[in-house]
Amino acid sequence: MIIGRVYGSVVSTHKLGSLVGSKFMLVQCIENGKFIDKYLVAVDGVGAGIGEDVLIVQGSGARAGMKDQNAPVDALIVGILDDKQV
Amino acid sequence: MIIGRVYGSVVSTHKLGSLVGSKFMLVQCIENGKFIDKYLVAVDGVGAGIGEDVLIVQGSGARAGMKDQNAPVDALIVGILDDKQV
Amino acid sequence: MIIGRVYGSVVSTHKLGSLVGSKFMLVQCIENGKFIDKYLVAVDGVGAGIGEDVLIVQGSGARAGMKDQNAPVDALIVGILDDKQV
Amino acid sequence: MIIGRVYGSVVSTHKLGSLVGSKFMLVQCIENGKFIDKYLVAVDGVGAGIGEDVLIVQGSGARAGMKDQNAPVDALIVGILDDKQV
Amino acid sequence: MIIGRVYGSVVSTHKLGSLVGSKFMLVQCIENGKFIDKYLVAVDGVGAGIGEDVLIVQGSGARAGMKDQNAPVDALIVGILDDKQV
Repeated sequence: MIIGRVYGSVVSTHKLGSLVGSKFMLVQCIENGKFIDKYLVAVDGVGAGIGEDVLIVQGSGARAGMKDQNAPVDALIVGILDDKQV
Repeated sequence: MIIGRVYGSVVSTHKLGSLVGSKFMLVQCIENGKFIDKYLVAVDGVGAGIGEDVLIVQGSGARAGMKDQNAPVDALIVGILDDKQV
Repeated sequence: MIIGRVYGSVVSTHKLGSLVGSKFMLVQCIENGKFIDKYLVAVDGVGAGIGEDVLIVQGSGARAGMKDQNAPVDALIVGILDDKQV
Repeated sequence: MIIGRVYGSVVSTHKLGSLVGSKFMLVQCIENGKFIDKYLVAVDGVGAGIGEDVLIVQGSGARAGMKDQNAPVDALIVGILDDKQV
Repeated sequence: MIIGRVYGSVVSTHKLGSLVGSKFMLVQCIENGKFIDKYLVAVDGVGAGIGEDVLIVQGSGARAGMKDQNAPVDALIVGILDDKQV
């Protein structure tokens, strides 16, 4: 898993039906207590808010955490970290 | 998922039969509102046009969004973003 | 697999139910006997402690090593190395 | 998917039985009409020849395009591009 | 797949039970006939020895080549190359 901070979201009205209801969060990755120059879009699985530091699972593990385990996703926020990492 | 802008397409007449009918879009990746030096080819799942900013799922999640879920693909455009990212 | 040294852990009280009981270890990667500038979070599958050098499997192979093989994880510590690598 | 140019092949007489009959092509990756400093080995699924520009699927999608869908491969040439990319 | 040269091995006495009997080889990656600054640990599937150039499959394809296809691995040596690559 990787750690990141949620800094926004993107909206896609025109998308695959299996993604309706998913919220797409913009995340900046954090490694070793520092922001790094790596950004991704992760579906929100835990109600994460902007400014929170989260745990993200990538790849097929992201689908394993979705209600619809056949949803076409590759990154999922699976936890909110108790402590800020930066 | 990653964000990218569609800037073209490629044609492959001689390909595996399971890919007939798939459209292969050329995409430049966008991170944090800037184009980055990373390009890929993604199958179009939503009728994306050149110049549009899209959401792309990679890996096995791409197959999950295909009509033929056993198609040999690793990147799929799953949504068109409402707002331009750059 | 990759080699890394465990240097801490993170706590997420608010997480997906399928991750309750998993311990999230902070790991710095090691390549060819040197620390590299790459860090990740891996679930602990073997009782690894801080300061130990471990073997980490990533991707869907991580789920294969979990008790709950459908847990949303993408990195798992699968072994403790007998000898320090750095 | 990624685009690459086939520039050779490698031979492995001593290999897993499930790979007998697979041809291993050496490919240099192309991004945005330029060769990049990234090379890989892909199984040939379409009869690609040296000097041809091809479409390569990576990861589990590569297995989806094999006759033996349980073959241990992670990169497959799935199409020959009609036009040279460089 | 990627090409690499086996240069050693690591031992993990304390590991998951599903990995008992697997040999963990240290491999330096080779691209285009040159060693690159990338190293990984791959399970040996073909009896590769130190100094040999091998073909490595990564990701879920590595499990497909294991006797126990549910073993938690993400990199497997699937063939020994007939010719040295460097």
